[in-house]
Amino acid sequence: MNNRAKKTCRACSPDAPRAPRLERQQFQKEHVNWQFVNENDIEKIRRTFFFDQYSEAIDFTNEIAELADFEDHHPTILLEWGKVTVTWWTHKIGGVHINDLLMARETDDLFASRIL
Amino acid sequence: MNNRAKKTCRACSPDAPRAPRLERQQFQKEHVNWQFVNENDIEKIRRTFFFDQYSEAIDFTNEIAELADFEDHHPTILLEWGKVTVTWWTHKIGGVHINDLLMARETDDLFASRIL
Repeated sequence: MNNRAKKTCRACSPDAPRAPRLERQQFQKEHVNWQFVNENDIEKIRRTFFFDQYSEAIDFTNEIAELADFEDHHPTILLEWGKVTVTWWTHKIGGVHINDLLMARETDDLFASRIL
Repeated sequence: MNNRAKKTCRACSPDAPRAPRLERQQFQKEHVNWQFVNENDIEKIRRTFFFDQYSEAIDFTNEIAELADFEDHHPTILLEWGKVTVTWWTHKIGGVHINDLLMARETDDLFASRIL
């Protein structure tokens, strides 16, 4: 299911709050493949997606990039042989905004739609 | 100039030699934007390419991925807002093979062809 129609990701201001603990816990419970990571004191969420074919990994990279450009919110996308690692966070607040959880969900939706 | 016609990248065996010192020095001299990096005791070569538009970064990612698939030699490609970081090394030898220097040169050629 694509959440985009229901709720869009909006650019947030530097004083926007980080994702509340309850939201994060709920997200983590429902999306066990995503991990909260800390890089240079910036919290991010990350998941690696695996593919049998390099061409599939390229296609998925393009889908995520298209989503990112549509939402004007850009993750890092690491394309390797057999896998793609997507990392979301919000630069302006130096951490995970509730929008990032939404983007992670959309990323999962895109991945799920590939294997349906 | 595209070197592909002159010399193709071939999959090498685990006992293939790493790029000789002289070749590396020559490469580094001619390609100052590439850096030799060490990750988990594996030497790699890396360069970050900068773009004004996200769409250009996506296009470049696809060009590198196409090159990688053509040569059956796959780097990591990190796509971010405004930049793409390409890292080459040879898994089988756990280091930089002379093929990786060739691929780095081809990567530069692809980048140069974008701004001609």
